[in-house]
Amino acid sequence: MQMHERGKIARAAGIQLAATDSQTRNAGLLAIAKALEENTAAIIAANQEDMKRSQEENLAAPLLKRLTFDAGKISDVIQGIHSLIELADPLGSTKLSTQLDEGLDLYKVTCPIGVIGVIFESRPDAFVQISTLCLKSGNAVLLKGGREALETNRILARVIGEATKTTGIPDGWVQNLETRDDVTAMMALNDYIDLIIPRGSNSFVQYIMANSNIPVMGHADGICHLYAHEDADIKQAVDIIVDSKTQYVAVCNALETLLVNEKIAPALLPPLKAALENKGVRLKGDAATRTIIDVEAATEQDWKTEYLDYILSIRIVPALDAAVAHINTYGSGHTDVILTTNEAAAKTFMTLVDSACVFWNCSTRFSDGFRFGFGAEVGVSTAKLHARGPVGLDGLLSYKYKLLGHGQCVADYASGKSHFTHLSQDTNCPV
Amino acid sequence: MQMHERGKIARAAGIQLAATDSQTRNAGLLAIAKALEENTAAIIAANQEDMKRSQEENLAAPLLKRLTFDAGKISDVIQGIHSLIELADPLGSTKLSTQLDEGLDLYKVTCPIGVIGVIFESRPDAFVQISTLCLKSGNAVLLKGGREALETNRILARVIGEATKTTGIPDGWVQNLETRDDVTAMMALNDYIDLIIPRGSNSFVQYIMANSNIPVMGHADGICHLYAHEDADIKQAVDIIVDSKTQYVAVCNALETLLVNEKIAPALLPPLKAALENKGVRLKGDAATRTIIDVEAATEQDWKTEYLDYILSIRIVPALDAAVAHINTYGSGHTDVILTTNEAAAKTFMTLVDSACVFWNCSTRFSDGFRFGFGAEVGVSTAKLHARGPVGLDGLLSYKYKLLGHGQCVADYASGKSHFTHLSQDTNCPV
Repeated sequence: MQMHERGKIARAAGIQLAATDSQTRNAGLLAIAKALEENTAAIIAANQEDMKRSQEENLAAPLLKRLTFDAGKISDVIQGIHSLIELADPLGSTKLSTQLDEGLDLYKVTCPIGVIGVIFESRPDAFVQISTLCLKSGNAVLLKGGREALETNRILARVIGEATKTTGIPDGWVQNLETRDDVTAMMALNDYIDLIIPRGSNSFVQYIMANSNIPVMGHADGICHLYAHEDADIKQAVDIIVDSKTQYVAVCNALETLLVNEKIAPALLPPLKAALENKGVRLKGDAATRTIIDVEAATEQDWKTEYLDYILSIRIVPALDAAVAHINTYGSGHTDVILTTNEAAAKTFMTLVDSACVFWNCSTRFSDGFRFGFGAEVGVSTAKLHARGPVGLDGLLSYKYKLLGHGQCVADYASGKSHFTHLSQDTNCPV
Repeated sequence: MQMHERGKIARAAGIQLAATDSQTRNAGLLAIAKALEENTAAIIAANQEDMKRSQEENLAAPLLKRLTFDAGKISDVIQGIHSLIELADPLGSTKLSTQLDEGLDLYKVTCPIGVIGVIFESRPDAFVQISTLCLKSGNAVLLKGGREALETNRILARVIGEATKTTGIPDGWVQNLETRDDVTAMMALNDYIDLIIPRGSNSFVQYIMANSNIPVMGHADGICHLYAHEDADIKQAVDIIVDSKTQYVAVCNALETLLVNEKIAPALLPPLKAALENKGVRLKGDAATRTIIDVEAATEQDWKTEYLDYILSIRIVPALDAAVAHINTYGSGHTDVILTTNEAAAKTFMTLVDSACVFWNCSTRFSDGFRFGFGAEVGVSTAKLHARGPVGLDGLLSYKYKLLGHGQCVADYASGKSHFTHLSQDTNCPV
């Protein structure tokens, strides 16, 4: 089927999905959980085809691990669906209620965004997590997973789509895209698709942002900083920096640049160098850093680089405001941390640093939907509009204004015959 | 000064403004109100220059009326500033608080978006309203008003900028742009500007959306519909339709297409035709409409047209779902109304119609920030992300996640040594 036709079907499904009640969507989720359980053997068989082909193509070991979808991972995503069912309905929630006049009541009510296009990496669990988050929030979804997971995603799409058919969920709410051409075609469907969430490499996300008129939620760079203030606890600082840099290097919330207050640098840098080199981290430093520890020279290009590797750049700064200025200049607005025992310094840093996540005395690696308690995440946003930071169910919602009247006309208010009361109310929208 | 430099200054001012407390921003607002009062004579003199030039250029009478900025209008905007001062601080409000673990607390806290670029029509009151909304919400702002209001906007920018200088508000938070070249240059400043709000003609808004990588909040079309269900009250329907169409025709929330249920059409259309023609409205109808009343023929092009004039297109539909389908196909997602005495029909319509504002038994013309009780509005959004519908202070906010720890590292949670508690809390962020 042509993408245009598939987009149209998704849009129609999204409209109907917006009108389903919580019970219907939860019944759909329950049916998906059951169907995944019943089809576990077939899903594993499909995944083994993907694994076999990918091994023959010499896919790197960490990627093979991500591609694996075994009984344990299937059981985890089923568990995730049951957690999702237990969550309160995100739709139809009244966020504002104002009496404009007697018998003229305004309500701001949550509703789905509509149709979401998600492009994600070769992790089949993501297919289940994203599609069920969309169903819970009443959104239709087009998913394009990594090429490596072709067979696994194909059977997941079929099992999930068929499971919901008998539960009152409109057909076509979940669709699996299999080719790059499908993605290119999807990028032009602004009549049918409301939001694209690309998860993947920096260049890929930038390509989507530059080539589609559909709003994009995501992040290109993840250049995360940690600033060690003059009064930071040295032992704690070393532990947090090692964790931020090395706990998982290939992810957007890993530390890339360390900023060190000049007062603490002589005490912090030597033990830090030992601890990081012990983990295999290559260090690069500015001139001031290199007067204290013997490391490679860092250039301005380093401040702009997301290594995603065992490399850390270090810069010494004279004061807090210089650290803030560095981060606001070179950062990507993702996650930045201050280490300090001084609450006022923490507050200044957290207010002035213009990033989605600003942390005090803990690892950059906490910046994640699961760790934040959102359940699964659909992505991380470094934009400042709509959703920012790790994005869970909330980021998949829009709202509409419902105004309930009894024949009121604006002419009567313009003429002074009627008057607005604008009284804030604490009532839920009745329709 | 080059726009690049001005953008950089605005960005620096925005960062500092985000760190000001409510008292400081309110003091700035109070200083602006006082300065406008003290400079009323000079402002009126500047406005008279604009009026004189525009009269010589034969500006149309309604536009001249909008351009006028007399003692009454100045007093109104000053009154508006005092209302704004009384509003609660929109910044630093904790929207979510979760204990991730003992001594590791997550807060979602409102913050400004940063730097806003606003392009608006020739109404000098808009300069004051928009700039003070931005100050209240901690945003720096670049404003480009209509060419006709050049002298008025120039003095307003000076008076407002100077008034806040001694109140702790950073210099450069409000800047006046005077040329189209400035706007073109601004559209490329994605490093410094976070959001552009264009208010103006459809083609102008589409031009900005197509030619800038900066997010745009606004609306291109305002094709508003009203659907008269089979059981609508005839007298009330005529009144509401006349108000929606004629109370002010040149605005985005005016009615453009009327959908009439076939069961009520014979009773509704004749008195409606009389009432609308009495107001000078030209009617266009589909074939079914023309079997009941004698009007011009409407074509599909009419369903896609925002007349902004005394013209109304009419289509007869067999049922509610056909009305919904028409609106979701041809509408612009702005404001759509159902007239019915049946609550279930109203609920179905308001759930299925995918528009920012869905109304029941009242005029489309209520779709407006002032009438909604938001005070002034910065614009109306037909997008589904971030802000939707009339946009007040809320639409000028973003948020950041603040995580307050005591040395926690992710490795301990990955190894199972530590465990997340994910307890929802009811506490405000202390920093």
